[in-house]
Amino acid sequence: MEALNAIKEVSYALDTFYFLVSGALVMWMAAGFAMLESGMVRSKNTVEILTKNVSLFAVASVMYMVVGYNIMYPADTINSVIPGVSFFLGADNAVADVVSGAEGAPYYSGMSDFFFQLVFAGAAMSIVSGAVAERMKLSSFLIFAIFMTSIIYPVQGFWKWGGGWLDAAGFLDFAGSGVVHMTGAVAALAGVILLGPRKGKYGPNGEIHAIPGANLPIATLGTFILWMGWFGFNGGSELMISNVGEANAVSLVFVNTNMAAAGGVIAALITAKLLFGKYDLTMALNGALAGLVAITAEPLTPTPGLATIIGAIGGVLVVFSITTLDKLKIDDPVGAISVHGVVGIWGILAVLLSNGDATFGAQILGIVAIFVWVFVASFIVWFIIKAIMGLRVGAEEEYEGMDLVDCGMEAYPEFTQNK
Amino acid sequence: MEALNAIKEVSYALDTFYFLVSGALVMWMAAGFAMLESGMVRSKNTVEILTKNVSLFAVASVMYMVVGYNIMYPADTINSVIPGVSFFLGADNAVADVVSGAEGAPYYSGMSDFFFQLVFAGAAMSIVSGAVAERMKLSSFLIFAIFMTSIIYPVQGFWKWGGGWLDAAGFLDFAGSGVVHMTGAVAALAGVILLGPRKGKYGPNGEIHAIPGANLPIATLGTFILWMGWFGFNGGSELMISNVGEANAVSLVFVNTNMAAAGGVIAALITAKLLFGKYDLTMALNGALAGLVAITAEPLTPTPGLATIIGAIGGVLVVFSITTLDKLKIDDPVGAISVHGVVGIWGILAVLLSNGDATFGAQILGIVAIFVWVFVASFIVWFIIKAIMGLRVGAEEEYEGMDLVDCGMEAYPEFTQNK
Amino acid sequence: MEALNAIKEVSYALDTFYFLVSGALVMWMAAGFAMLESGMVRSKNTVEILTKNVSLFAVASVMYMVVGYNIMYPADTINSVIPGVSFFLGADNAVADVVSGAEGAPYYSGMSDFFFQLVFAGAAMSIVSGAVAERMKLSSFLIFAIFMTSIIYPVQGFWKWGGGWLDAAGFLDFAGSGVVHMTGAVAALAGVILLGPRKGKYGPNGEIHAIPGANLPIATLGTFILWMGWFGFNGGSELMISNVGEANAVSLVFVNTNMAAAGGVIAALITAKLLFGKYDLTMALNGALAGLVAITAEPLTPTPGLATIIGAIGGVLVVFSITTLDKLKIDDPVGAISVHGVVGIWGILAVLLSNGDATFGAQILGIVAIFVWVFVASFIVWFIIKAIMGLRVGAEEEYEGMDLVDCGMEAYPEFTQNK
Repeated sequence: MEALNAIKEVSYALDTFYFLVSGALVMWMAAGFAMLESGMVRSKNTVEILTKNVSLFAVASVMYMVVGYNIMYPADTINSVIPGVSFFLGADNAVADVVSGAEGAPYYSGMSDFFFQLVFAGAAMSIVSGAVAERMKLSSFLIFAIFMTSIIYPVQGFWKWGGGWLDAAGFLDFAGSGVVHMTGAVAALAGVILLGPRKGKYGPNGEIHAIPGANLPIATLGTFILWMGWFGFNGGSELMISNVGEANAVSLVFVNTNMAAAGGVIAALITAKLLFGKYDLTMALNGALAGLVAITAEPLTPTPGLATIIGAIGGVLVVFSITTLDKLKIDDPVGAISVHGVVGIWGILAVLLSNGDATFGAQILGIVAIFVWVFVASFIVWFIIKAIMGLRVGAEEEYEGMDLVDCGMEAYPEFTQNK
Repeated sequence: MEALNAIKEVSYALDTFYFLVSGALVMWMAAGFAMLESGMVRSKNTVEILTKNVSLFAVASVMYMVVGYNIMYPADTINSVIPGVSFFLGADNAVADVVSGAEGAPYYSGMSDFFFQLVFAGAAMSIVSGAVAERMKLSSFLIFAIFMTSIIYPVQGFWKWGGGWLDAAGFLDFAGSGVVHMTGAVAALAGVILLGPRKGKYGPNGEIHAIPGANLPIATLGTFILWMGWFGFNGGSELMISNVGEANAVSLVFVNTNMAAAGGVIAALITAKLLFGKYDLTMALNGALAGLVAITAEPLTPTPGLATIIGAIGGVLVVFSITTLDKLKIDDPVGAISVHGVVGIWGILAVLLSNGDATFGAQILGIVAIFVWVFVASFIVWFIIKAIMGLRVGAEEEYEGMDLVDCGMEAYPEFTQNK
Repeated sequence: MEALNAIKEVSYALDTFYFLVSGALVMWMAAGFAMLESGMVRSKNTVEILTKNVSLFAVASVMYMVVGYNIMYPADTINSVIPGVSFFLGADNAVADVVSGAEGAPYYSGMSDFFFQLVFAGAAMSIVSGAVAERMKLSSFLIFAIFMTSIIYPVQGFWKWGGGWLDAAGFLDFAGSGVVHMTGAVAALAGVILLGPRKGKYGPNGEIHAIPGANLPIATLGTFILWMGWFGFNGGSELMISNVGEANAVSLVFVNTNMAAAGGVIAALITAKLLFGKYDLTMALNGALAGLVAITAEPLTPTPGLATIIGAIGGVLVVFSITTLDKLKIDDPVGAISVHGVVGIWGILAVLLSNGDATFGAQILGIVAIFVWVFVASFIVWFIIKAIMGLRVGAEEEYEGMDLVDCGMEAYPEFTQNK
């Protein structure tokens, strides 16, 4: 008995440590988004996007702690659609509860779970950031971040992961192709529609002008950071590692996550080569991310071979989606809506390929429910912000760049000073 | 009995692994300092600061192994002020000792503890690097690094963490707001005073000229690296994770570390906006680091809400400190003295807000003791180096940049060649 | 009995988690190589090398899964020289097998081992990338990557780590100074010989022209990433952590890995200062990597002091090797052949300094066997690719840079546009 209790304590510690390491890797994705986005924009808007990425993660941390987590995982719920709010981070588990032998006894620190959930909220918000780059006011963005991480993201998170109605309906989304990635992308889409494209992106006769990013090594670094962080994102979402079955499961999730990214790179590279005749680095990077998003809804049941294919389809999709959005004049400087939204939907549907518990109806229901909630709620919030303070910087500010006007400094003062 | 011994072995392995992962994260902070500092200086001094950061970590590793660790954690002590030196890394623990059941039986690998302590010494030395940037001779700096990591840092480390008199006096410093951060900053302050400001930083009529950093994305990356590494820095300093209570404690430390950083970002951003009218990226980054430094002396007893506030106060302080030091003509290109020194003191005092065992007297005693020892010892070492070989590069070398003269290469030869 | 079985499950989970964390750190080395190489080349070839690094890791992942792993660790072997192929990733271990008490019962997830092995194959391929930079066709490189990660690397990996004849002959190579690093370097050497030097590197009268890298902060970052990732590379290669002896061993491996890198930095910095009169950053970075390569064949049996010396000798060697290869007109833009090849050989021989089981004959046999196999096989593959599609871009393309021609974009369009 003494030994069995001691084993429960060690298991608890191991599962907690696994959560914390996974959470630290997901926090690290904030750096990945910051580098990816700052490499993909022009130098004159780089300081602004860096400031935005650091600030949004801070805002997400505070708002998710005070409001969001309590909405997403409420101690009491009103019903399965509208969660209660406790505004409270409870005390952590006592030893007696852990070793009680009771059904549902806690097996890892609740505070480590909070940390893991918090960094997911940060990731969802980071997705929005890139799509509205180079023209949205920083203050307007940060106000949106408050609502996004307090309410919009947590409510649909409650529906699925908090045990709400979508979960009851059989919607499956292991690590958040829908709950995190599509949610971020749909919030971004609502913002982009109200915001409009960057000046000069689309010509009067339908021409699409490429606006190259200023620093592609840093964008590549961002992609590698995200790839690495995704091992925590998907790997941690198994929520347990401390026995043989769970350890095997987490291992398979790691492998499938890597294979999907690899498949996405290769497919996007080939697709872009066939379409454009070039080895397109930014498409390869988006292919990696697309593969990762695609496998996120179900990284456990596919074989590694199938995971590669799921990622590869994501990689093909992202190339076509990016070119299609440009034709629709939806200006997304980093491709976030395509990577996280279009491929997020693919990821949700791809669950059907390997998980026998998934149903087409439930997956579609999840897509529609999340889309409608996030789009409508985001649109209203963006709309109110626009009405009160505006979303967009002035035309001259956009031309000169947001860095000097908003932030008072340049990202690369010595490299661009003569330009 | 067999089972209990086996559990002790697994616990030992888990605690050791937790130490090693934490240590690897702290080693990674060396990259964070290197990126932060190289982004904050001008391109003409970038190779030098990169060389310095790589080299100082190497010097710290060797000197701390040969001398420093043995001073800080001596097998024999002369008394609680002056430690003995063994010049020896002992053999690691035997199984029999681990499972002996004896009071104080080793519960993790001593070699993993050495690794964890070594990377802390590297971090302390990295702090010095930024403050003396753009004008100190590389050779002089590296000679100081030898003394700092062999003697200056370890002696006060022994006083607190090695079980010396400051520990006995009740001084509390969980992960080193004082022992590491203030120590690094005070050593830097002594050097800066003897070194003087960069040419052109302060005008003859008291003007302060901003000298913008050359590469802010890389400085932002450095900050994110430090944020991530701090989970190892503070999280590992709990020193155990293998039971329910310890796992809960480490989890709370992770959360509080993150919340303090978030509070620091938001507070510094708002403070700078109110003072300067701009969203100041470098202040936001320093705010993140200030929040992290502020929570380092006590990341375990505050609630996450209080941790946010402690970090936020750090974020406000750092903005005022940086502007004040400039008025005093103490030229610190990256704000290291403010971030690690001024906010380090705040962190030591903030222990009083949540830890009932802390006393005002003991915390003040710790601040004064560390300050006096580190300042006096560092001043003497810097002074001797200055007398023998000089601290400062020549005026022409400073004007032309240290990179071509000292290092024979440019950091960005194609971006700056016409300037 | 119940308790002992439960302990086996927790141990299994801990060893698996240790493998996964180690593997994620090694995957992260792909980012390190990408940053190191992209910082060391000229801006006009930067997009190409980034595309190459992302793509090669994807190709390595897929090919190693489908073919390579099955060759390196075959379920059935024809003999100890020629492995069988199963084209199959087996199911993971069942609980009953883990707790069976049988000799050789599985103690960690096979899928986590596959992940760990896969990222090693990626690392071996990444080494090749830098040496052929700035002039090799991307398509030719990626075709070579297919053969390298399917066959060339796995066959010699089978000889040693898969239990083949080199292992039986007593050749010792803990984490792959030979199996990974020398292998990558020898494959690169064969390619470089067939490819020839970059235009302008060597003058008609034997002059050697330095071709400076475009972005040294990013190259330094790459080195720090590799340093960090090496804790997973060497630390994970102990293959177990879950008891006192293994936890102590992994800890010593971490310490020795760090000390060798530190020794390499200091030795290379001093050597270069004595030879060239400058503090040479790129030599310091190569010194760090040389130290790491040198300790990789045996990071467990040396004391930390000896590890420092082994790394330092690597740091001296790499400086002389780089200058010697230039005299031989073997053009290796990032020094990969010296760092991984020449120092890899030193690492294999350095096993003799501390491991009583090593014999001079077996270590030499390993060097020769790996060299001959990898060189001949690589030379044939490169030769066939050259005959069919060519290895080298056209002269004009090389002059203009590969980025615009092959990839259709520039890495830094705003920093270099007037040049």
